[in-house]
Amino acid sequence: MDTMGRHVIAELWQCNIDKLNDINFIERVFVDAALEAGAEVREVAFHKFAPQGVSGVVIISESHLTIHSFPEHGYASIDVYTCGDRIDPNVASDFIANALGAGKSEVVEVPRGIGPIEVTPRKTEKTYTK
Amino acid sequence: MDTMGRHVIAELWQCNIDKLNDINFIERVFVDAALEAGAEVREVAFHKFAPQGVSGVVIISESHLTIHSFPEHGYASIDVYTCGDRIDPNVASDFIANALGAGKSEVVEVPRGIGPIEVTPRKTEKTYTK
Repeated sequence: MDTMGRHVIAELWQCNIDKLNDINFIERVFVDAALEAGAEVREVAFHKFAPQGVSGVVIISESHLTIHSFPEHGYASIDVYTCGDRIDPNVASDFIANALGAGKSEVVEVPRGIGPIEVTPRKTEKTYTK
Repeated sequence: MDTMGRHVIAELWQCNIDKLNDINFIERVFVDAALEAGAEVREVAFHKFAPQGVSGVVIISESHLTIHSFPEHGYASIDVYTCGDRIDPNVASDFIANALGAGKSEVVEVPRGIGPIEVTPRKTEKTYTK
């Protein structure tokens, strides 16, 4: 398999606080986001923290999706990393941003596995449909 | 909890091919790397691909460590993301690079959860002890 990959880093702000604290909802959204992008789900692991916050990962054949949520700040830290050029990681990250009701985001894309790491801002301050 | 985090992206090249294909070795290295950095391990999920390659994640209280290995290219794609300022993600990523026998690496650090994403190259072309 080619080493080339696309890694989307998304900082989501002003998210729905209840959703950010709901491990079952987040797990379902992440699996759905992977499938929506056309990825193949391999492993799923999520963890709920006390008193709040969820961390988790979906390992896909094409790499991974991760989240760390901070309900008290309305913030979710998202990574969507896809190997190859068949899948667009932005499809999954947009799906997640919409599902979490993000009011504001910063998204950059980092090329992986092809040499020098150069970061491309995709968009900032995008407002998602609530 | 504060949203501030440090995300180390490490591209490791010229790694030991056998190690890149050994799921048990990689899982142990990743758990040890997390502990070496002083992190608290919460969830562990690794997957072996056919004919080769390993993907996996260790979720820590402070965020996560991930790997995607490409034995046929001697390449491993590493992420170490730690929230807060108690832990240095570079400790874990250096531990992993050494364990995998990386001959060459590119490492950048991405601040998370604090506003604009700016990437700082930490070092390039570092040679690790084999």
